[in-house]
Amino acid sequence: MKTEDNRLVECVPNFSEGRRPEVFAEILATIRAVPGIKILHSSMDPDHNRAVVTFVGYPEAVKEGAFQATRVAAELIDLNRHCGEHPRIGACDVIPFIPLTQIDMSDCVSLAEDVAERIWRELGIPTYLYGESGGQPEHRSLLHIRRGGFESLNHRIALPGYQPDFGGEHLHPTAGATAVGARKPLVAFNINLQTTDLTVAKTIARAVRESSGGLPHVQARGMAIRSRGLVQVSMNLLDVEAMPMKRVFQRVAEEAAARGVAIHSSEVIELVPLQAVIDSFADALQLESFSKDQILEWVLKDSP
Amino acid sequence: MKTEDNRLVECVPNFSEGRRPEVFAEILATIRAVPGIKILHSSMDPDHNRAVVTFVGYPEAVKEGAFQATRVAAELIDLNRHCGEHPRIGACDVIPFIPLTQIDMSDCVSLAEDVAERIWRELGIPTYLYGESGGQPEHRSLLHIRRGGFESLNHRIALPGYQPDFGGEHLHPTAGATAVGARKPLVAFNINLQTTDLTVAKTIARAVRESSGGLPHVQARGMAIRSRGLVQVSMNLLDVEAMPMKRVFQRVAEEAAARGVAIHSSEVIELVPLQAVIDSFADALQLESFSKDQILEWVLKDSP
Repeated sequence: MKTEDNRLVECVPNFSEGRRPEVFAEILATIRAVPGIKILHSSMDPDHNRAVVTFVGYPEAVKEGAFQATRVAAELIDLNRHCGEHPRIGACDVIPFIPLTQIDMSDCVSLAEDVAERIWRELGIPTYLYGESGGQPEHRSLLHIRRGGFESLNHRIALPGYQPDFGGEHLHPTAGATAVGARKPLVAFNINLQTTDLTVAKTIARAVRESSGGLPHVQARGMAIRSRGLVQVSMNLLDVEAMPMKRVFQRVAEEAAARGVAIHSSEVIELVPLQAVIDSFADALQLESFSKDQILEWVLKDSP
Repeated sequence: MKTEDNRLVECVPNFSEGRRPEVFAEILATIRAVPGIKILHSSMDPDHNRAVVTFVGYPEAVKEGAFQATRVAAELIDLNRHCGEHPRIGACDVIPFIPLTQIDMSDCVSLAEDVAERIWRELGIPTYLYGESGGQPEHRSLLHIRRGGFESLNHRIALPGYQPDFGGEHLHPTAGATAVGARKPLVAFNINLQTTDLTVAKTIARAVRESSGGLPHVQARGMAIRSRGLVQVSMNLLDVEAMPMKRVFQRVAEEAAARGVAIHSSEVIELVPLQAVIDSFADALQLESFSKDQILEWVLKDSP
């Protein structure tokens, strides 16, 4: 990024399309065309029927990228024809802004508000502020807004507690609504279980998530991965320093073992912080001390 | 490194001084003063009474750095006054050259020969070629040359199988001899055991090292860490892809447990390849797939 602006914002929009690569390719091309943005990673999941991209850039560029991606997603995705395991309310379902360098959370909150306002004004898609941007207390978490997805929100949008921050009494007929917010970095971590019994995944999700008395900083949901004959505990880890990935994994494995179910595999969606990788390495080997400065390729990259 | 030469060689010389920081500082300053070299990491160990530095650069620069470091070490270190757990034959004890990018092992072999010849010619320190550079079959491994260290080699240097590749019938009176060679990357990995019984460390080292029928690609030695009231299995892992660090750790832990001894901790000396860190992370979490392109800071560093 050749720019005078050294402030760096990360944006990780999620789109309700995980099965048509050409649609996601067009969204990615739209983002890539915005000067001052770099796409770090992207992925599609046909079971979740969802796609996600991580990009970074300076604030104005990231705002533009997020808006343009929403515009193109709204053109190409019709939620009335969309089904999938992941609850969703919009073609561009959720747009989180994450402060990376030389920028505060409060800056990301303003940025989210700008984008949310513009999406409503220019595209006619109602928007909900969430996370650190949550204007109304009920909106800080997406849980109750998302429950039942697009179809359910269609009936609730005019009710108290469901009214958008920007928008009227109706969802956009095909693009639904979009949640826009600022948040800290998180790790999306899914653990696949060797069973088709969705109850097992849901029960384990309940046991490990913070909201029902499980592990701090963990959000979890049980889902079926029908194409693979598996179920999944799909998680957001909100603080992998305070709650290491290994501990979450072990807790899920214990809960599964108690039900006679084996872990099949796990997956990280998009990116993890380097420290989480290092912590896991150091933990596995009981290393007394280890830092990124002991990773050959890392210190080589620093070479001028 | 601003240079036309894109060939990159790594050099990891070991010095017989782990207790006088000012001596090591002078050696490091000498290396740093050579244009075209970057020091990646360095460390001292008072128990081993040994110091090690990892630097990279283009071939001519790295040759110069290795030679100058040997010269300064010979001025400042008197092996007659040196004692420590690690077997050693010289003030600058061993100089491995490792091909990194756009360079072959055969180039590193030539490079090692040049430096070995110059150390004898200009400093009067006999040199042994080892590793891929080993001219005589007995010299390919340092084991038999190093056995008994400087004091023992003093008596054996004129005997068949102990004669240096460059040098005469006597060690340098204070700087001993230096082993110079080319080798593939290795990981120096030490595991500390919660006991003062050196026999346990030596027995476990014998059980895990390849040369006595243990794990492939593993060299191991048992050592006392008297300052900490521990013993240590000190290892070189010659291929951490073929023999993952976690497997080595688990094997040592099993051997220790069979003797009622607990693992105290472990340590990596100098650098490890990124892939070893990633493999450990992926293994701990049973990740289906994971690459460095999913590490936030890594992909951020790649940003133009």
